[in-house]
Amino acid sequence: MKRETEAIRDLLFSPIAVELQEVEERLRAGLESHSSLIAEVSSYVLGSAGKRIRPALLLLSAKLCGSEDGSRSVALAAVAEYMHVATLIHDDIIDNADRRRGLPSANSRWGSHVSVLVGDFLYARAIQILVEDEDFRILKAFADATVSMAEGEILELQTYKKLDITYEEYLKIITCKTAALISAACQAGALISKTSEEQVKAMADFGLNLGIGFQLVDDALDFVADEERLGKPVGNDLKEGKITFPLIHLAQNGSDGAQRRLRVLVAKERFDEDDLLEVRELVEKHQGVQATMEKVHEFLDKAKASLKLFPDSPSRRSLLCMTDFVRERDW
Amino acid sequence: MKRETEAIRDLLFSPIAVELQEVEERLRAGLESHSSLIAEVSSYVLGSAGKRIRPALLLLSAKLCGSEDGSRSVALAAVAEYMHVATLIHDDIIDNADRRRGLPSANSRWGSHVSVLVGDFLYARAIQILVEDEDFRILKAFADATVSMAEGEILELQTYKKLDITYEEYLKIITCKTAALISAACQAGALISKTSEEQVKAMADFGLNLGIGFQLVDDALDFVADEERLGKPVGNDLKEGKITFPLIHLAQNGSDGAQRRLRVLVAKERFDEDDLLEVRELVEKHQGVQATMEKVHEFLDKAKASLKLFPDSPSRRSLLCMTDFVRERDW
Repeated sequence: MKRETEAIRDLLFSPIAVELQEVEERLRAGLESHSSLIAEVSSYVLGSAGKRIRPALLLLSAKLCGSEDGSRSVALAAVAEYMHVATLIHDDIIDNADRRRGLPSANSRWGSHVSVLVGDFLYARAIQILVEDEDFRILKAFADATVSMAEGEILELQTYKKLDITYEEYLKIITCKTAALISAACQAGALISKTSEEQVKAMADFGLNLGIGFQLVDDALDFVADEERLGKPVGNDLKEGKITFPLIHLAQNGSDGAQRRLRVLVAKERFDEDDLLEVRELVEKHQGVQATMEKVHEFLDKAKASLKLFPDSPSRRSLLCMTDFVRERDW
Repeated sequence: MKRETEAIRDLLFSPIAVELQEVEERLRAGLESHSSLIAEVSSYVLGSAGKRIRPALLLLSAKLCGSEDGSRSVALAAVAEYMHVATLIHDDIIDNADRRRGLPSANSRWGSHVSVLVGDFLYARAIQILVEDEDFRILKAFADATVSMAEGEILELQTYKKLDITYEEYLKIITCKTAALISAACQAGALISKTSEEQVKAMADFGLNLGIGFQLVDDALDFVADEERLGKPVGNDLKEGKITFPLIHLAQNGSDGAQRRLRVLVAKERFDEDDLLEVRELVEKHQGVQATMEKVHEFLDKAKASLKLFPDSPSRRSLLCMTDFVRERDW
């Protein structure tokens, strides 16, 4: 099944297969540093089966909008991945996560010291590449996204175990922490191409809605996915006190009994596997995952609509398929 | 005595007193965010008696080079301080430091989760301000400095308890981790002023040599300072396995007996107050602090020489005095 997913991805990414290879080289080349440890840790994190979604979206967006400057889009695709990986590394410190993508996290392998700094290094390298690229609008898109990401993560910490978080608050969190960077990547692809304002806006919107859909699916998968296939532990959000859409739905729409039980379970100091199983059953019984998937469709349909501006092309078909791929993903 | 230091600082900063007040406002205004926690933590860290050395250097450098654009220099001075504070916050995670500037560190007060993210936020805000300022050379100066800072900190971790670190390696570390940002601040001040290449280079060099001198003094103070006056625990570097110049000097020039004893002490798993006292005595006996101060004078004299390019002015006099202030500081 994992191979099948990869085959679909290869097909989706076929219009940019060459550029994605160049992105890999660019990612490696950018790690040269005074410190061998930086290259070692960064390569480890970059190499742990990253799906390169953000670089691919940037490259497809550039192609869709008619860019012919392959070297710029490759450099900026590397920026998107560096920023993403920097946040993953810092997230692992936040979550004290032992595993990431099925492998031990950088944090558990090298310690928080090194993780904080390698994340800082990757983020700073990304900015350096943006400065070399000399386009203030693209710099602004990424700079705004990084402010949003930090804000989103902190907002999430502030809603720890808060079952009364509203849907709007949750939406703000996932927009900031996940969708902002995906939107910046899509927007940057359009900006390279010197296309119309309308098309730039359309690609920014596409990325934003795709990113929200992507995170909603992620949050749903935490309740239903197969651990081995997902490559990270299931039920993690709940163990970390993160209140995501399936739970918000349950807290707002569950029976009185279910709501009471949920509050007791979430409030527990030591949340064990039995508790997790019970919450998962409650969520299932009250269609929490279905409700999440309805939201997913809403956002992904909006993303699709943004592509109406563009004529048919291999990259447009790939982007359309990606919205369906996100809907159906189980990784 | 503390008051005396403050009085000297006030005098040094008198040519930019108004601008420094504006920097304080700018620093506060830049913290507005979706999350109240960001403002709370950032204000705490920014407010804990920061000496605003980097903003002051940027403002003085701008004035020295003839800048008349006060609002740009104030904004960029805030950038320098945000970046500095971001690294302080991340350093506290690295060092697991309980106290910073005489107060509990953000890390011990809010936890690593929050600290990592608030550091990320401040760094990202700094980049946002630089993007608004729209000067690629200034952006490049700061972006290069942030890459250096992460590299320097990681190099430092890699030399943990390594008594055979060379002077050149140590110099590289302190140049990256401390002097690079100070140099960027001085360079930015010159760049705002649209002055000659020669003067821009002179200010970058001034900052670099001042920064190296500053860090050397810091490393010496860790062996001799008065804890209360310094506002942070003394002997901290050694407890953290950091090998700084006074120790390198001892390891290279001490008697055979002293060198052997030093190796035993540094290698100890649990390094206690008695061990610290013994190392301090060894350093003192072999003139480790004097040797450090000789290096300090070398770099600060170079810094002073860079100012020869400029005619006499209140800001030039302040910058000259600052090199002496660094030499003699005990905070």
